[in-house]
Amino acid sequence: MDINKLDEFAKKMIFEAGKRIREAFSYDLVVETKSGANDLVTNIDRETELFFIEKIKASFPQHKILGEEGMGEDVKSLEGPVWIIDPIDGTMNFVKQHRHFMITIGFFVDGVGKLGYIFDVMREDLFHAIEGQGAWYNDSPLRQLQPVPLEEAVIGINATWVTPNRLVNHEKMTELVHTIRGTRSYGSAAMEIAYVVSGKLDAYISMRLAPWDIGGGTIIAKEVGAITTNLKGEDCNLLSKDTFIIANPSIHHRILNEYIEEK
Amino acid sequence: MDINKLDEFAKKMIFEAGKRIREAFSYDLVVETKSGANDLVTNIDRETELFFIEKIKASFPQHKILGEEGMGEDVKSLEGPVWIIDPIDGTMNFVKQHRHFMITIGFFVDGVGKLGYIFDVMREDLFHAIEGQGAWYNDSPLRQLQPVPLEEAVIGINATWVTPNRLVNHEKMTELVHTIRGTRSYGSAAMEIAYVVSGKLDAYISMRLAPWDIGGGTIIAKEVGAITTNLKGEDCNLLSKDTFIIANPSIHHRILNEYIEEK
Repeated sequence: MDINKLDEFAKKMIFEAGKRIREAFSYDLVVETKSGANDLVTNIDRETELFFIEKIKASFPQHKILGEEGMGEDVKSLEGPVWIIDPIDGTMNFVKQHRHFMITIGFFVDGVGKLGYIFDVMREDLFHAIEGQGAWYNDSPLRQLQPVPLEEAVIGINATWVTPNRLVNHEKMTELVHTIRGTRSYGSAAMEIAYVVSGKLDAYISMRLAPWDIGGGTIIAKEVGAITTNLKGEDCNLLSKDTFIIANPSIHHRILNEYIEEK
Repeated sequence: MDINKLDEFAKKMIFEAGKRIREAFSYDLVVETKSGANDLVTNIDRETELFFIEKIKASFPQHKILGEEGMGEDVKSLEGPVWIIDPIDGTMNFVKQHRHFMITIGFFVDGVGKLGYIFDVMREDLFHAIEGQGAWYNDSPLRQLQPVPLEEAVIGINATWVTPNRLVNHEKMTELVHTIRGTRSYGSAAMEIAYVVSGKLDAYISMRLAPWDIGGGTIIAKEVGAITTNLKGEDCNLLSKDTFIIANPSIHHRILNEYIEEK
Protein backbone atom coordinates (compact mmCIF):
# COMPACT_ATOMS: atom_id res chain seq x y z
CA MET A 1 0.00 0.00 0.00
CA ASP A 2 1.49 3.34 -1.08
CA ILE A 3 0.37 5.65 1.72
CA ASN A 4 1.03 8.84 -0.26
CA LYS A 5 -1.14 7.63 -3.12
CA LEU A 6 -3.83 6.74 -0.62
CA ASP A 7 -3.52 10.25 0.81
CA GLU A 8 -4.11 11.74 -2.65
CA PHE A 9 -7.13 9.46 -3.07
CA ALA A 10 -8.57 10.54 0.28
CA LYS A 11 -8.05 14.26 -0.28
CA LYS A 12 -9.66 14.12 -3.71
CA MET A 13 -12.64 12.26 -2.25
CA ILE A 14 -13.00 14.77 0.61
CA PHE A 15 -12.81 17.83 -1.65
CA GLU A 16 -15.43 16.32 -3.94
CA ALA A 17 -17.75 15.55 -1.01
CA GLY A 18 -17.29 19.09 0.27
CA LYS A 19 -18.25 20.54 -3.09
CA ARG A 20 -21.41 18.43 -3.14
CA ILE A 21 -22.40 19.62 0.32
CA ARG A 22 -21.78 23.27 -0.54
CA GLU A 23 -23.90 22.85 -3.64
CA ALA A 24 -26.72 21.35 -1.59
CA PHE A 25 -26.86 24.65 0.29
CA SER A 26 -27.86 26.45 -2.86
CA TYR A 27 -31.36 25.09 -2.20
CA ASP A 28 -31.56 27.79 0.39
CA LEU A 29 -35.32 27.86 0.87
CA VAL A 30 -35.46 24.17 1.59
CA VAL A 31 -32.75 24.45 4.21
CA GLU A 32 -34.53 27.32 5.87
CA THR A 33 -37.78 25.39 6.31
CA LYS A 34 -37.48 24.17 9.85
CA SER A 35 -39.03 20.73 9.50
CA GLY A 36 -37.47 20.32 6.09
CA ALA A 37 -34.06 21.23 7.48
CA ASN A 38 -33.76 18.13 9.64
CA ASP A 39 -34.62 15.85 6.75
CA LEU A 40 -32.20 17.64 4.50
CA VAL A 41 -29.43 17.25 7.05
CA THR A 42 -30.14 13.58 7.45
CA ASN A 43 -30.15 13.18 3.69
CA ILE A 44 -26.91 15.06 3.11
CA ASP A 45 -25.27 13.25 6.03
CA ARG A 46 -26.25 9.85 4.63
CA GLU A 47 -25.56 10.69 1.02
CA THR A 48 -22.09 11.92 1.94
CA GLU A 49 -21.30 8.81 3.94
CA LEU A 50 -22.59 6.64 1.09
CA PHE A 51 -20.45 8.63 -1.34
CA PHE A 52 -17.35 7.84 0.75
CA ILE A 53 -18.27 4.17 1.08
CA GLU A 54 -18.81 3.77 -2.65
CA LYS A 55 -15.54 5.52 -3.48
CA ILE A 56 -13.55 3.43 -1.04
CA LYS A 57 -15.20 0.11 -1.90
CA ALA A 58 -14.70 0.72 -5.63
CA SER A 59 -10.93 1.06 -5.17
CA PHE A 60 -10.32 -0.97 -2.01
CA PRO A 61 -13.05 -3.58 -1.63
CA GLN A 62 -11.22 -5.24 1.28
CA HIS A 63 -11.09 -2.10 3.46
CA LYS A 64 -13.53 -1.88 6.36
CA ILE A 65 -15.54 1.30 6.99
CA LEU A 66 -16.92 2.58 10.28
CA GLY A 67 -19.19 5.58 9.81
CA GLU A 68 -21.43 7.71 11.96
CA GLU A 69 -24.49 7.05 9.88
CA GLY A 70 -23.94 3.31 10.19
CA MET A 71 -24.03 2.67 6.47
CA GLY A 72 -20.70 0.85 6.51
CA GLU A 73 -20.10 -2.51 8.17
CA ASP A 74 -20.66 -3.33 11.80
CA VAL A 75 -16.95 -3.00 12.54
CA LYS A 76 -15.98 -5.07 15.59
CA SER A 77 -12.20 -4.87 15.41
CA LEU A 78 -9.55 -2.58 14.00
CA GLU A 79 -7.70 -5.46 12.35
CA GLY A 80 -6.56 -4.71 8.80
CA PRO A 81 -7.24 -1.45 6.95
CA VAL A 82 -10.15 0.52 8.47
CA TRP A 83 -11.63 3.91 7.54
CA ILE A 84 -13.41 5.81 10.32
CA ILE A 85 -15.68 8.48 8.89
CA ASP A 86 -17.87 11.31 10.10
CA PRO A 87 -19.48 12.88 7.02
CA ILE A 88 -20.73 15.92 8.98
CA ASP A 89 -19.40 16.68 12.44
CA GLY A 90 -21.32 19.58 14.02
CA THR A 91 -24.83 18.86 12.79
CA MET A 92 -26.49 21.72 14.65
CA ASN A 93 -23.99 24.18 13.19
CA PHE A 94 -24.75 22.70 9.79
CA VAL A 95 -28.50 23.35 10.21
CA LYS A 96 -28.38 26.68 11.98
CA GLN A 97 -25.17 28.33 10.91
CA HIS A 98 -24.40 26.82 7.52
CA ARG A 99 -20.79 26.81 8.66
CA HIS A 100 -18.55 25.34 11.35
CA PHE A 101 -19.18 21.73 10.36
CA MET A 102 -16.45 19.32 9.35
CA ILE A 103 -15.86 16.18 7.35
CA THR A 104 -13.44 14.11 9.40
CA ILE A 105 -11.81 10.84 8.39
CA GLY A 106 -9.13 8.58 9.83
CA PHE A 107 -7.46 5.67 8.10
CA PHE A 108 -6.02 2.94 10.31
CA VAL A 109 -4.12 -0.28 9.66
CA ASP A 110 -4.31 -2.80 12.49
CA GLY A 111 -5.33 0.01 14.81
CA VAL A 112 -2.40 2.26 13.91
CA GLY A 113 -3.39 5.67 12.51
CA LYS A 114 -1.96 6.28 9.06
CA LEU A 115 -3.93 9.18 7.56
CA GLY A 116 -6.05 11.82 9.31
CA TYR A 117 -8.30 14.55 7.90
CA ILE A 118 -10.46 17.35 9.24
CA PHE A 119 -12.05 19.44 6.50
CA ASP A 120 -13.92 22.67 7.22
CA VAL A 121 -16.43 22.31 4.40
CA MET A 122 -17.60 25.90 4.01
CA ARG A 123 -14.22 27.50 4.58
CA GLU A 124 -12.47 24.85 2.46
CA ASP A 125 -9.75 24.50 5.06
CA LEU A 126 -8.05 21.12 5.34
CA PHE A 127 -6.10 19.94 8.37
CA HIS A 128 -4.42 16.61 7.60
CA ALA A 129 -1.59 14.27 8.49
CA ILE A 130 0.36 11.31 7.21
CA GLU A 131 1.87 9.08 9.90
CA GLY A 132 5.56 9.82 10.31
CA GLN A 133 5.58 12.47 7.58
CA GLY A 134 3.93 15.35 9.45
CA ALA A 135 0.74 17.39 9.41
CA TRP A 136 -0.49 20.26 7.28
CA TYR A 137 -2.98 23.10 7.33
CA ASN A 138 -3.81 23.24 3.63
CA ASP A 139 -0.33 23.44 2.08
CA SER A 140 1.49 24.78 5.14
CA PRO A 141 3.23 22.36 7.50
CA LEU A 142 1.86 22.45 11.04
CA ARG A 143 4.62 22.94 13.56
CA GLN A 144 5.18 21.00 16.78
CA LEU A 145 3.11 22.52 19.56
CA GLN A 146 5.11 24.83 21.79
CA PRO A 147 4.73 24.67 25.59
CA VAL A 148 2.07 26.94 27.10
CA PRO A 149 1.53 27.62 30.82
CA LEU A 150 -1.91 26.42 31.92
CA GLU A 151 -2.63 29.94 33.16
CA GLU A 152 -2.31 31.25 29.60
CA ALA A 153 -4.21 28.43 27.92
CA VAL A 154 -7.42 28.83 25.93
CA ILE A 155 -9.44 25.63 26.09
CA GLY A 156 -12.47 24.29 24.28
CA ILE A 157 -15.05 23.25 26.89
CA ASN A 158 -18.80 23.37 26.59
CA ALA A 159 -20.53 25.28 29.38
CA THR A 160 -22.49 22.12 30.20
CA TRP A 161 -19.45 20.55 31.84
CA VAL A 162 -19.06 23.32 34.38
CA THR A 163 -22.68 22.81 35.49
CA PRO A 164 -23.78 19.91 37.70
CA ASN A 165 -23.83 16.79 35.49
CA ARG A 166 -23.69 13.02 35.76
CA LEU A 167 -20.25 12.49 34.30
CA VAL A 168 -17.68 14.77 35.88
CA ASN A 169 -17.12 16.82 39.04
CA HIS A 170 -18.17 20.23 37.82
CA GLU A 171 -16.53 22.06 40.74
CA LYS A 172 -13.12 20.83 39.66
CA MET A 173 -13.97 21.82 36.12
CA THR A 174 -14.95 25.25 37.41
CA GLU A 175 -11.52 25.57 39.04
CA LEU A 176 -9.99 24.79 35.67
CA VAL A 177 -12.05 27.49 33.96
CA HIS A 178 -10.97 29.98 36.63
CA THR A 179 -7.31 29.01 36.22
CA ILE A 180 -6.95 29.32 32.45
CA ARG A 181 -6.99 32.41 30.24
CA GLY A 182 -10.27 31.62 28.49
CA THR A 183 -12.69 29.08 27.07
CA ARG A 184 -14.27 28.61 23.67
CA SER A 185 -17.03 26.34 22.39
CA TYR A 186 -17.72 25.79 18.70
CA GLY A 187 -20.20 22.92 18.62
CA SER A 188 -18.01 20.61 16.53
CA ALA A 189 -15.51 18.25 18.16
CA ALA A 190 -13.53 17.93 14.94
CA MET A 191 -13.29 21.71 14.63
CA GLU A 192 -12.00 22.04 18.18
CA ILE A 193 -9.48 19.23 17.58
CA ALA A 194 -8.33 21.00 14.38
CA TYR A 195 -7.85 24.16 16.43
CA VAL A 196 -5.72 22.34 19.02
CA VAL A 197 -3.42 20.71 16.45
CA SER A 198 -2.87 24.11 14.85
CA GLY A 199 -2.28 25.94 18.16
CA LYS A 200 -5.50 28.01 17.99
CA LEU A 201 -6.67 26.31 21.19
CA ASP A 202 -4.48 24.58 23.78
CA ALA A 203 -6.85 21.77 24.71
CA TYR A 204 -10.36 20.47 24.13
CA ILE A 205 -12.31 18.35 26.59
CA SER A 206 -15.51 16.40 26.06
CA MET A 207 -17.38 13.92 28.23
CA ARG A 208 -18.76 11.81 25.44
CA LEU A 209 -17.49 11.39 21.91
CA ALA A 210 -17.71 8.61 19.34
CA PRO A 211 -14.81 7.07 17.37
CA TRP A 212 -15.82 8.96 14.22
CA ASP A 213 -15.64 12.30 16.05
CA ILE A 214 -12.01 11.81 16.98
CA GLY A 215 -10.51 9.15 14.66
CA GLY A 216 -8.97 11.48 12.08
CA GLY A 217 -8.01 14.03 14.71
CA THR A 218 -5.95 11.61 16.82
CA ILE A 219 -3.70 10.94 13.81
CA ILE A 220 -3.10 14.63 13.13
CA ALA A 221 -2.53 15.18 16.86
CA LYS A 222 0.33 12.68 16.97
CA GLU A 223 2.24 14.45 14.22
CA VAL A 224 2.29 17.81 16.04
CA GLY A 225 2.87 16.37 19.52
CA ALA A 226 -0.66 16.93 20.86
CA ILE A 227 -1.75 14.26 23.33
CA THR A 228 -5.09 12.48 22.91
CA THR A 229 -6.50 10.21 25.63
CA ASN A 230 -9.72 9.56 27.45
CA LEU A 231 -10.14 11.35 30.78
CA LYS A 232 -8.52 8.48 32.64
CA GLY A 233 -5.38 9.16 30.62
CA GLU A 234 -5.77 5.93 28.61
CA ASP A 235 -5.39 5.59 24.85
CA CYS A 236 -8.54 6.48 22.92
CA ASN A 237 -10.77 3.51 22.20
CA LEU A 238 -11.83 3.69 18.58
CA LEU A 239 -14.60 1.12 18.84
CA SER A 240 -16.86 2.74 21.41
CA LYS A 241 -17.98 6.06 22.87
CA ASP A 242 -15.79 7.49 25.61
CA THR A 243 -14.59 10.66 27.29
CA PHE A 244 -11.93 12.61 25.42
CA ILE A 245 -9.18 15.16 25.81
CA ILE A 246 -6.71 16.53 23.29
CA ALA A 247 -4.12 18.84 24.76
CA ASN A 248 -0.83 20.57 24.27
CA PRO A 249 1.67 18.15 25.88
CA SER A 250 2.75 20.77 28.44
CA ILE A 251 -0.72 20.88 30.04
CA HIS A 252 -2.29 17.47 29.40
CA HIS A 253 -1.03 15.83 32.56
CA ARG A 254 -1.85 18.77 34.81
CA ILE A 255 -5.41 19.11 33.51
CA LEU A 256 -6.11 15.41 34.09
CA ASN A 257 -4.41 15.24 37.46
CA GLU A 258 -5.61 18.44 39.06
CA TYR A 259 -8.95 19.21 37.45
CA ILE A 260 -10.68 16.11 36.13
CA GLU A 261 -12.62 13.90 38.51
CA GLU A 262 -14.97 11.53 36.76
CA LYS A 263 -18.06 10.35 38.60
CA MET B 1 -26.14 64.24 5.33
CA ASP B 2 -26.75 61.57 2.68
CA ILE B 3 -26.80 58.39 4.75
CA ASN B 4 -26.28 56.11 1.76
CA LYS B 5 -23.16 58.00 0.71
CA LEU B 6 -21.91 57.81 4.28
CA ASP B 7 -22.55 54.06 4.16
CA GLU B 8 -20.38 53.76 1.04
CA PHE B 9 -17.69 55.80 2.76
CA ALA B 10 -17.76 53.57 5.84
CA LYS B 11 -17.69 50.31 3.90
CA LYS B 12 -14.76 51.44 1.78
CA MET B 13 -12.87 52.47 4.91
CA ILE B 14 -13.61 49.14 6.64
CA PHE B 15 -12.56 47.02 3.66
CA GLU B 16 -9.32 48.98 3.37
CA ALA B 17 -8.58 48.58 7.09
CA GLY B 18 -9.29 44.84 6.79
CA LYS B 19 -6.85 44.53 3.92
CA ARG B 20 -4.16 46.29 5.93
CA ILE B 21 -4.69 43.94 8.88
CA ARG B 22 -4.58 40.84 6.69
CA GLU B 23 -1.35 42.08 5.15
CA ALA B 24 0.16 42.59 8.60
CA PHE B 25 -0.27 38.85 9.14
CA SER B 26 2.13 38.13 6.34
CA TYR B 27 4.89 38.87 8.86
CA ASP B 28 4.12 35.45 10.19
CA LEU B 29 7.27 34.88 12.22
CA VAL B 30 6.81 38.11 14.12
CA VAL B 31 3.24 37.22 15.03
CA GLU B 32 4.31 33.82 16.23
CA THR B 33 6.90 35.19 18.64
CA LYS B 34 5.00 35.20 21.89
CA SER B 35 6.33 38.39 23.43
CA GLY B 36 6.37 40.10 20.06
CA ALA B 37 2.76 39.10 19.44
CA ASN B 38 1.33 41.34 22.13
CA ASP B 39 3.19 44.37 20.84
CA LEU B 40 2.13 43.61 17.31
CA VAL B 41 -1.49 43.38 18.38
CA THR B 42 -1.31 46.65 20.24
CA ASN B 43 0.31 48.25 17.21
CA ILE B 44 -2.21 46.93 14.70
CA ASP B 45 -5.09 47.80 17.03
CA ARG B 46 -3.85 51.39 17.41
CA GLU B 47 -2.85 51.83 13.81
CA THR B 48 -6.26 50.66 12.66
CA GLU B 49 -8.07 53.00 15.02
CA LEU B 50 -5.84 55.86 13.91
CA PHE B 51 -6.56 54.96 10.28
CA PHE B 52 -10.31 55.27 10.94
CA ILE B 53 -9.90 58.53 12.84
CA GLU B 54 -7.82 60.09 10.08
CA LYS B 55 -10.26 58.98 7.38
CA ILE B 56 -13.27 60.31 9.25
CA LYS B 57 -11.66 63.56 10.35
CA ALA B 58 -10.44 64.25 6.80
CA SER B 59 -13.99 64.10 5.43
CA PHE B 60 -16.07 65.01 8.48
CA PRO B 61 -13.99 67.13 10.86
CA GLN B 62 -17.02 67.91 13.02
CA HIS B 63 -17.86 64.22 13.76
CA LYS B 64 -16.93 62.85 17.19
CA ILE B 65 -15.14 59.50 17.53
CA LEU B 66 -15.25 57.11 20.46
CA GLY B 67 -12.76 54.26 20.06
CA GLU B 68 -11.52 51.36 22.16
CA GLU B 69 -7.92 52.43 21.96
CA GLY B 70 -8.85 55.88 23.22
CA MET B 71 -7.19 57.68 20.35
CA GLY B 72 -10.34 59.65 19.54
CA GLU B 73 -11.84 62.32 21.78
CA ASP B 74 -13.00 61.85 25.33
CA VAL B 75 -16.64 61.60 24.23
CA LYS B 76 -18.99 62.62 27.05
CA SER B 77 -22.29 62.79 25.18
CA LEU B 78 -23.88 61.31 22.07
CA GLU B 79 -25.02 64.71 20.83
CA GLY B 80 -24.47 65.27 17.11
CA PRO B 81 -22.77 62.75 14.81
CA VAL B 82 -20.69 60.17 16.68
CA TRP B 83 -18.70 57.17 15.44
CA ILE B 84 -18.17 54.33 17.92
CA ILE B 85 -15.29 52.11 16.82
CA ASP B 86 -13.63 48.88 17.85
CA PRO B 87 -10.74 48.30 15.46
CA ILE B 88 -10.22 44.69 16.64
CA ASP B 89 -12.88 42.93 18.71
CA GLY B 90 -11.61 39.54 19.91
CA THR B 91 -7.97 40.35 20.65
CA MET B 92 -7.08 36.93 21.98
CA ASN B 93 -8.49 35.28 18.87
CA PHE B 94 -6.44 37.73 16.84
CA VAL B 95 -3.22 36.69 18.60
CA LYS B 96 -3.85 32.98 18.94
CA GLN B 97 -6.12 32.03 16.09
CA HIS B 98 -5.45 34.62 13.40
CA ARG B 99 -9.20 34.55 12.81
CA HIS B 100 -12.49 35.22 14.58
CA PHE B 101 -11.77 38.91 15.21
CA MET B 102 -13.97 41.71 13.95
CA ILE B 103 -13.87 45.37 13.06
CA THR B 104 -17.09 46.84 14.42
CA ILE B 105 -18.38 50.37 13.93
CA GLY B 106 -21.58 52.21 14.73
CA PHE B 107 -22.54 55.66 13.49
CA PHE B 108 -25.01 57.60 15.63
CA VAL B 109 -26.68 61.01 15.32
CA ASP B 110 -27.93 62.44 18.60
CA GLY B 111 -27.81 58.94 20.06
CA VAL B 112 -29.87 57.34 17.29
CA GLY B 113 -28.10 54.52 15.43
CA LYS B 114 -27.84 55.21 11.71
CA LEU B 115 -25.20 52.81 10.36
CA GLY B 116 -23.87 49.59 11.86
CA TYR B 117 -21.02 47.32 10.76
CA ILE B 118 -19.44 44.07 11.91
CA PHE B 119 -16.66 42.88 9.62
CA ASP B 120 -15.05 39.45 9.98
CA VAL B 121 -11.60 40.53 8.83
CA MET B 122 -10.10 37.18 7.82
CA ARG B 123 -13.25 35.76 6.31
CA GLU B 124 -14.10 39.08 4.63
CA ASP B 125 -17.72 38.78 5.74
CA LEU B 126 -19.62 42.00 6.34
CA PHE B 127 -22.78 42.27 8.42
CA HIS B 128 -24.21 45.77 8.15
CA ALA B 129 -27.33 47.90 8.43
CA ILE B 130 -28.74 51.28 7.50
CA GLU B 131 -31.44 52.60 9.83
CA GLY B 132 -34.86 52.04 8.32
CA GLN B 133 -33.50 50.45 5.15
CA GLY B 134 -32.61 47.01 6.47
CA ALA B 135 -29.57 44.84 7.15
CA TRP B 136 -27.32 42.75 4.95
CA TYR B 137 -24.88 39.88 5.15
CA ASN B 138 -22.51 40.89 2.37
CA ASP B 139 -24.94 41.49 -0.52
CA SER B 140 -27.80 39.36 0.82
CA PRO B 141 -30.58 40.99 2.83
CA LEU B 142 -30.88 39.63 6.37
CA ARG B 143 -34.42 38.56 7.12
CA GLN B 144 -36.48 39.37 10.21
CA LEU B 145 -35.70 36.86 12.95
CA GLN B 146 -38.30 34.11 13.19
CA PRO B 147 -39.61 32.98 16.60
CA VAL B 148 -37.72 30.14 18.26
CA PRO B 149 -38.78 28.22 21.37
CA LEU B 150 -36.28 28.72 24.20
CA GLU B 151 -35.89 24.95 24.39
CA GLU B 152 -34.53 24.91 20.83
CA ALA B 153 -32.32 27.98 21.19
CA VAL B 154 -28.54 28.02 20.78
CA ILE B 155 -27.05 30.80 22.85
CA GLY B 156 -23.64 32.44 23.09
CA ILE B 157 -22.53 32.35 26.73
CA ASN B 158 -19.03 32.05 28.07
CA ALA B 159 -18.55 29.18 30.54
CA THR B 160 -17.39 31.73 33.14
CA TRP B 161 -20.96 32.92 33.69
CA VAL B 162 -22.21 29.50 34.74
CA THR B 163 -19.49 29.31 37.39
CA PRO B 164 -19.68 31.24 40.69
CA ASN B 165 -18.90 34.87 39.89
CA ARG B 166 -19.42 38.36 41.30
CA LEU B 167 -21.92 39.60 38.75
CA VAL B 168 -24.74 37.14 38.22
CA ASN B 169 -26.47 34.23 39.94
CA HIS B 170 -24.73 31.32 38.25
CA GLU B 171 -27.32 28.79 39.38
CA LYS B 172 -30.02 30.57 37.40
CA MET B 173 -27.63 30.73 34.47
CA THR B 174 -27.05 27.00 34.84
CA GLU B 175 -30.81 26.43 34.61
CA LEU B 176 -30.79 28.39 31.39
CA VAL B 177 -27.98 26.25 29.95
CA HIS B 178 -29.90 23.12 30.89
CA THR B 179 -33.09 24.46 29.29
CA ILE B 180 -31.75 25.44 25.87
CA ARG B 181 -30.50 23.26 23.02
CA GLY B 182 -26.88 24.32 23.23
CA THR B 183 -24.28 26.99 23.94
CA ARG B 184 -21.42 28.43 21.94
CA SER B 185 -18.57 30.77 22.82
CA TYR B 186 -16.39 32.44 20.21
CA GLY B 187 -14.36 34.98 22.18
CA SER B 188 -15.59 38.02 20.23
CA ALA B 189 -18.73 39.88 21.28
CA ALA B 190 -19.13 41.40 17.83
CA MET B 191 -18.91 37.97 16.22
CA GLU B 192 -21.60 36.59 18.52
CA ILE B 193 -23.80 39.63 17.84
CA ALA B 194 -23.31 39.12 14.08
CA TYR B 195 -24.38 35.50 14.54
CA VAL B 196 -27.56 36.52 16.38
CA VAL B 197 -28.63 39.08 13.78
CA SER B 198 -28.16 36.46 11.07
CA GLY B 199 -29.99 33.69 12.98
CA LYS B 200 -26.88 31.55 13.56
CA LEU B 201 -27.36 32.01 17.31
CA ASP B 202 -30.58 32.95 19.10
CA ALA B 203 -29.07 35.10 21.84
CA TYR B 204 -25.77 36.24 23.30
CA ILE B 205 -25.26 37.27 26.91
CA SER B 206 -22.31 39.03 28.51
CA MET B 207 -21.76 40.50 31.95
CA ARG B 208 -19.47 43.29 30.93
CA LEU B 209 -19.12 44.95 27.56
CA ALA B 210 -18.01 48.38 26.41
CA PRO B 211 -19.88 50.70 24.02
CA TRP B 212 -17.45 49.89 21.18
CA ASP B 213 -18.15 46.15 21.54
CA ILE B 214 -21.86 46.61 20.89
CA GLY B 215 -22.39 50.00 19.17
CA GLY B 216 -22.47 48.77 15.58
CA GLY B 217 -24.28 45.58 16.52
CA THR B 218 -27.23 47.32 18.19
CA ILE B 219 -28.00 49.12 14.91
CA ILE B 220 -27.95 45.92 12.85
CA ALA B 221 -30.05 44.23 15.55
CA LYS B 222 -32.85 46.76 15.22
CA GLU B 223 -33.23 46.15 11.50
CA VAL B 224 -33.80 42.39 11.91
CA GLY B 225 -35.96 42.65 15.04
CA ALA B 226 -33.34 41.41 17.51
CA ILE B 227 -33.63 43.02 20.94
CA THR B 228 -30.59 44.56 22.63
CA THR B 229 -30.68 45.69 26.26
CA ASN B 230 -28.65 45.47 29.41
CA LEU B 231 -29.56 42.63 31.77
CA LYS B 232 -32.06 44.85 33.59
CA GLY B 233 -33.93 45.13 30.31
CA GLU B 234 -32.97 48.79 29.87
CA ASP B 235 -31.70 50.38 26.66
CA CYS B 236 -27.97 49.93 26.12
CA ASN B 237 -25.89 52.80 27.48
CA LEU B 238 -23.35 53.73 24.84
CA LEU B 239 -21.17 55.84 27.10
CA SER B 240 -20.14 53.30 29.72
CA LYS B 241 -19.52 49.60 30.32
CA ASP B 242 -22.55 47.53 31.21
CA THR B 243 -24.12 44.09 31.03
CA PHE B 244 -25.54 43.08 27.66
CA ILE B 245 -27.98 40.78 25.95
CA ILE B 246 -28.98 40.51 22.32
CA ALA B 247 -31.77 38.05 21.66
CA ASN B 248 -34.37 36.84 19.25
CA PRO B 249 -37.50 38.78 20.32
CA SER B 250 -39.37 35.56 21.12
CA ILE B 251 -36.96 34.65 23.93
CA HIS B 252 -35.51 37.95 25.21
CA HIS B 253 -38.16 38.55 27.85
CA ARG B 254 -38.18 34.99 29.12
CA ILE B 255 -34.39 34.81 29.47
CA LEU B 256 -34.30 38.05 31.47
CA ASN B 257 -37.31 37.22 33.63
CA GLU B 258 -36.67 33.59 34.43
CA TYR B 259 -32.92 33.14 34.26
CA ILE B 260 -31.02 36.36 34.94
CA GLU B 261 -30.49 37.49 38.51
CA GLU B 262 -27.80 40.12 38.85
CA LYS B 263 -25.91 40.38 42.12
